[in-house]
Amino acid sequence: MTAPGAPQADPLTDPDYRQAVTDLLGVLAYGELTAFHRLADDARHAPSIADKAALGAMAVAEFGHFERLNARLLELGADPEAAMRPFVRALDGFHHKTSPADWCESLVKAYVGDGIASDFYRAMADYVDADTRTLVVDVLADTGHADFAVGRVRAAIAADAKLGGRLALWGRRLLGEALAQAQRVAAERDTLTPLFTGGPDRPGADLLELARIFNQLTEEHTRRMAALGLSA
Amino acid sequence: MTAPGAPQADPLTDPDYRQAVTDLLGVLAYGELTAFHRLADDARHAPSIADKAALGAMAVAEFGHFERLNARLLELGADPEAAMRPFVRALDGFHHKTSPADWCESLVKAYVGDGIASDFYRAMADYVDADTRTLVVDVLADTGHADFAVGRVRAAIAADAKLGGRLALWGRRLLGEALAQAQRVAAERDTLTPLFTGGPDRPGADLLELARIFNQLTEEHTRRMAALGLSA
Repeated sequence: MTAPGAPQADPLTDPDYRQAVTDLLGVLAYGELTAFHRLADDARHAPSIADKAALGAMAVAEFGHFERLNARLLELGADPEAAMRPFVRALDGFHHKTSPADWCESLVKAYVGDGIASDFYRAMADYVDADTRTLVVDVLADTGHADFAVGRVRAAIAADAKLGGRLALWGRRLLGEALAQAQRVAAERDTLTPLFTGGPDRPGADLLELARIFNQLTEEHTRRMAALGLSA
Repeated sequence: MTAPGAPQADPLTDPDYRQAVTDLLGVLAYGELTAFHRLADDARHAPSIADKAALGAMAVAEFGHFERLNARLLELGADPEAAMRPFVRALDGFHHKTSPADWCESLVKAYVGDGIASDFYRAMADYVDADTRTLVVDVLADTGHADFAVGRVRAAIAADAKLGGRLALWGRRLLGEALAQAQRVAAERDTLTPLFTGGPDRPGADLLELARIFNQLTEEHTRRMAALGLSA
């Protein structure tokens, strides 16, 4: 029992919680690393050198996030490679199944795909200690994708009416694959569970709360598709 | 005529020289941008997350160089995209013809291919004004490729004797393609010529000097191949 007004126990002393945070930082770190490689690679489709450079700058920002997460894992005494490894198959699988065929598909994926992932991780951040939360929210900050992608995609749809239908299907596929991979991670990796079930000093999320999170994910996805001028 | 002791005329006031410097910075900028995308993409072959991250860090350093060259082009009143465009075909062609088939070929290309390009541009830097030279020498500084590639390739060859023969052929092909593309650029883009022929205030390079530069390129290439444990 903690006396009222006494400093709260450091939640990281609880080994289950510590493992859950290591996992959360691990999946985020590998996510940022793959986002970096994917953005740099998608630039192949860029129609101009300026677009190639713009995508490059976003990729570099993602790499900066990867480095911060990596540094925090080391600080926690974790082996970053071991922390990331459990999520390699799911994240590589997502990117393999959603390889963009052209420039507009790349942009929709950068905006809509990263948006879904960010919403999901940001929701998890409500259940971690303040230091971890600050880091997670920081590395999920928009690196400029949003405005860039929205502007380019809207202009492309305005110039080619048929494109809207194809990209709307693409957006739905991205959501489906993202949810399928998230379920796979959750099923394979139950070390993340303590974040949602809570602990002596931390409130958990109940089923209603989880339902709310998934509702919000879909609403935010619909909002992003609308921003692109697409039906969700 | 400049009086002895008077400040030297700014060579950038000569439009031919200015165009030559714009071209030099343009080809370097596009070279760094493609190096960035290529390193990030080659990471697909990386055998571990740590190797993927190491290649990512090098790619990010190349992007920093690209940004410096871009900023200098803007400072000179040039349009960076226009300055890079004349070199897109030759550089994309080089990368298209030398796409690595595996991790070791990626490493040899990062080390040997970038080495040839750096030697070439560093030799050109002897013929430009001090500000431009400082920038060129800075952006050509090794970003960590060398030690990383040498260590990894030597270990791979030690583990697989046949690999050395294949990589030696690969190194020769890289040199051949690099020289072919350099000749193509020189033939298509004679605006770079004033750098070698000199001007009223700048010494040029004579044929003997050019022969010396090419000799040195081949010698340095041989030295790098030897560092990898390969015959040139």
